[in-house]
Amino acid sequence: MPKLTIGIDFGTLSARAILADRADGAVLAQCEFAYPHAVMEQALPDGTRLPPGWALHHPQDYLDALAYTVPRLLADSGAAPEDIIALGTDVTGSTVMTLRADGMPLCLLPAYRSRPHAWSRLWKQQTAQAQADQITSLALERGEPWLKRYGGKVSATWMLPKALETLMEDPALYQAADLFAEASDWVVWTLTGQRSRNACAAAYKALYSAQDGYPGEDFLKALHPGLKGFHAQKLAGRVLSPFESAGGLAEGIAEKLGLRAGIAVSAGMLDAHVCAASAGLTRPGQMLSILGTSGCHLLLGEEQVPVEGICGAAPEGILPGYIGYEAGQVCFGDHLAWLTTHLLPAEYKEEAARLGISAHELLSRKAAVLRPGQSGLLALDWWNGNRSMLNDADLNGLLIGLTLHTKAEEIYRALLESLAFGARLITEGYRGQGLQVSSLRVTGGISRKNPLAMQIYADILGLPVHVPAMQEGAAMGSAILAAAAAGRDAGGHPDVYAAIKAMAPPAGQDYLPIPEHQAVYDRLFAQYRRLHDYFGRGENDVMKLLNRIRLENS
Amino acid sequence: MPKLTIGIDFGTLSARAILADRADGAVLAQCEFAYPHAVMEQALPDGTRLPPGWALHHPQDYLDALAYTVPRLLADSGAAPEDIIALGTDVTGSTVMTLRADGMPLCLLPAYRSRPHAWSRLWKQQTAQAQADQITSLALERGEPWLKRYGGKVSATWMLPKALETLMEDPALYQAADLFAEASDWVVWTLTGQRSRNACAAAYKALYSAQDGYPGEDFLKALHPGLKGFHAQKLAGRVLSPFESAGGLAEGIAEKLGLRAGIAVSAGMLDAHVCAASAGLTRPGQMLSILGTSGCHLLLGEEQVPVEGICGAAPEGILPGYIGYEAGQVCFGDHLAWLTTHLLPAEYKEEAARLGISAHELLSRKAAVLRPGQSGLLALDWWNGNRSMLNDADLNGLLIGLTLHTKAEEIYRALLESLAFGARLITEGYRGQGLQVSSLRVTGGISRKNPLAMQIYADILGLPVHVPAMQEGAAMGSAILAAAAAGRDAGGHPDVYAAIKAMAPPAGQDYLPIPEHQAVYDRLFAQYRRLHDYFGRGENDVMKLLNRIRLENS
Repeated sequence: MPKLTIGIDFGTLSARAILADRADGAVLAQCEFAYPHAVMEQALPDGTRLPPGWALHHPQDYLDALAYTVPRLLADSGAAPEDIIALGTDVTGSTVMTLRADGMPLCLLPAYRSRPHAWSRLWKQQTAQAQADQITSLALERGEPWLKRYGGKVSATWMLPKALETLMEDPALYQAADLFAEASDWVVWTLTGQRSRNACAAAYKALYSAQDGYPGEDFLKALHPGLKGFHAQKLAGRVLSPFESAGGLAEGIAEKLGLRAGIAVSAGMLDAHVCAASAGLTRPGQMLSILGTSGCHLLLGEEQVPVEGICGAAPEGILPGYIGYEAGQVCFGDHLAWLTTHLLPAEYKEEAARLGISAHELLSRKAAVLRPGQSGLLALDWWNGNRSMLNDADLNGLLIGLTLHTKAEEIYRALLESLAFGARLITEGYRGQGLQVSSLRVTGGISRKNPLAMQIYADILGLPVHVPAMQEGAAMGSAILAAAAAGRDAGGHPDVYAAIKAMAPPAGQDYLPIPEHQAVYDRLFAQYRRLHDYFGRGENDVMKLLNRIRLENS
Repeated sequence: MPKLTIGIDFGTLSARAILADRADGAVLAQCEFAYPHAVMEQALPDGTRLPPGWALHHPQDYLDALAYTVPRLLADSGAAPEDIIALGTDVTGSTVMTLRADGMPLCLLPAYRSRPHAWSRLWKQQTAQAQADQITSLALERGEPWLKRYGGKVSATWMLPKALETLMEDPALYQAADLFAEASDWVVWTLTGQRSRNACAAAYKALYSAQDGYPGEDFLKALHPGLKGFHAQKLAGRVLSPFESAGGLAEGIAEKLGLRAGIAVSAGMLDAHVCAASAGLTRPGQMLSILGTSGCHLLLGEEQVPVEGICGAAPEGILPGYIGYEAGQVCFGDHLAWLTTHLLPAEYKEEAARLGISAHELLSRKAAVLRPGQSGLLALDWWNGNRSMLNDADLNGLLIGLTLHTKAEEIYRALLESLAFGARLITEGYRGQGLQVSSLRVTGGISRKNPLAMQIYADILGLPVHVPAMQEGAAMGSAILAAAAAGRDAGGHPDVYAAIKAMAPPAGQDYLPIPEHQAVYDRLFAQYRRLHDYFGRGENDVMKLLNRIRLENS
């Protein structure tokens, strides 16, 4: 009788679920559920208009996704409920929910359904920038030791800025919220009936560390008197490591889903970090880049050191025994999509249609014919600011080297290269602090769809790039963590590394750096770095000034 | 009986001719003759292949243009030969011809027809860059006083670099050429049967000044021993001011053209500079910008002062009594055409087709809705290098301020703005040396087709812009100079200013600077200037490095 685990990845627009064999990771079934409410950006379900910049989830969509995907996996695979030994989930984050003490989301209560702050605020909502800035500067001023773990800057997308935003904008709702929670923990609570927090989201999104806990009461008080007790009360809950079990599947929901009650449910996890498991990371020095609309770079390290511009560094934040480092590029595929959306020449559109391929594929094919350096172009990949090294949203994109002959595919390639230069700067930041970066795995949409991007990535980072042959990396990561959470006795694995070794197969596509390309890119990278520092570190603040003038004239 | 003059403008691809009334400049007829050989860039007429970068005219095309246009003007207007009192011409330059002592172009002799250097080398041919650099550095080294008149740099497109190129690449042909000539002088020689040089081309293209003549023999000798006697012998000929008569129309050609022999033929002129007359320039401080594929900025000044990056400064080079200053922007409309050629989005192409307008007009309409500063973009207008202030072809274009929302019309507007910033830098260069720039006239294709460009020009330069209502500015300029060359006794005007006042009417379109726009643009211009200096003056040579890497990898 097979031992199977289910992994469900709650993404931004849909949930993807897979049913995997704990023995070898074979995928027996997979399915996707698009959220009926998608991302709410204009209005709440009752018609209440949202201010600009808001991006909300409807928690009912998470429940509906569970109810749809699990029975579907069983039906499609023919698996019996008794084959399923565990269930794991991950949710995109930071996705901040406000809850009643019993776990009921405030937005599902009639009294609060018209209040924007009652809903699940997504990672992409940046309206709490002023609050984030306030937190950063107060932490700097007070010399808060935790700030270094976050590269010196708190993001507007995280828990505390969102909580402070709620307190300032809707204090009554803030009071009414017994708890704040990451959606990844709320889903696990729903499954197990037990409240818990996951170390991954707590560390990367809520300023928590296993050693020091959350920032202290005196910090909260100095930030805003109304925040008194926020961490102790509104974030109450034991913090679980990602590879732990959060408890057994509760009876009511087990019945709804058609599973056995009591099977292991793994602790919550963020969707990026859970990919470390499915990508097969097991040793320090291994870096995983998840490249989609944005870019996320995870590294396992042996020591906790401060690294400029990282999003976070957390012991056991990703996998046991190591410090998990996370750095990001706020906008990755989005750069490329800018070109195809706003500047795709008419002839290219026609040619792509004739060939039956996407604009991206056409531009990649044309760009692939070019040699490194041949376009004469260099870009700074800041079309949506820089959230890496410089952690500064108030920067913007630059293209240099334009001539009367510059073509769309040359710009496309320059954008790809600039993204890889940005990633290289991140690896050099890690190395500069003594961390090893010895191998590179890449997952995410771009890794599968764009071989040119992967070759450029290998050439510019000077490392072999391995693209694991896997579908639904996040869902598979959750399925792997579920197998570890089940434990050996329940038919799972004794620990997470045993689960990874069994279930994340080594197959995939490898891209080796081409020495002649590396030589050219090393020269271009030196220029990239110089422009990066010149425009990014205050020597020339023209970008900020242009942004200011733009806002004044919009 | 009307007194009429003919003006013929020999351009790059065609000649345009008009018949004008000397009393009020009324145009009685106009026509165009496209050169049968156009610009020869690939091969000579006998099939001899040309090296890359060559651009030649066939002198027979000039003769055919004369033979076609003059009878056509008479036929179309019904004018009688006795109504025509004078003929004026201008030719695009520097267009360098090699001639036998009797004026026969070497390329028309069977012995030389396969030799590229025997043909009319156009202004756009830059193959003599190495020779130009050699001339510049020798002049610098020797402290040649004339170098200052040319902004410190000799252009590859001028007479002496082309002559030296001939001497080095085809010494036998150099020897066989009794004379070198600007095409503008050869045309006048053909019409009058008398050899002359025009002060305009001599000053702006052949390093001549009325006061000092050409660079001396010792300079030529130091440059290349083979150049001995070049100026004295191969450029022999009296230098006429542009408003002088070059002689009467010779009998043979008068008969061919259907005109009376002996009518005045004005001295030759370059096509840009002759527009000063038709645009109505009469006073110091008046600047004329001729904006087409490239940009040319002419200013009348009272004193001869050195100005950085100008193309030339010549007493009476443009109009009598003043120093004529010329500065250029190597690429003006070409920048805009880059966008419509290489990056015109499919939807825009469709929309323009639906509206029945050009891509330029569509982009201008969309860009006109934007406020200054609203796009957040700033460009350095160096898509084809900078031949203004910096006089450096080894620079390239820059776009800064890009975001995920940047649209084609925003780039279009940023390009327009950058060109106006470039022009403003030129006016500030003039002013920095004590020259007045008090009013601005603009002619050329862009002035008529693009009102947005003109408004931006007024806003950025902070001066009212007057676009004279005239057709064929160069041909009209030649017709005006012809009326002056005829003189009062022959029914013309007593001097060139009288001719301008009578024939260049004040009508036209005016664009006044909008103070709120000026305020924004002043801030943006400060940033433009800073980037200009940072990337253009050696502080950061990344553009040159990108060009080098591009060449190495092409």
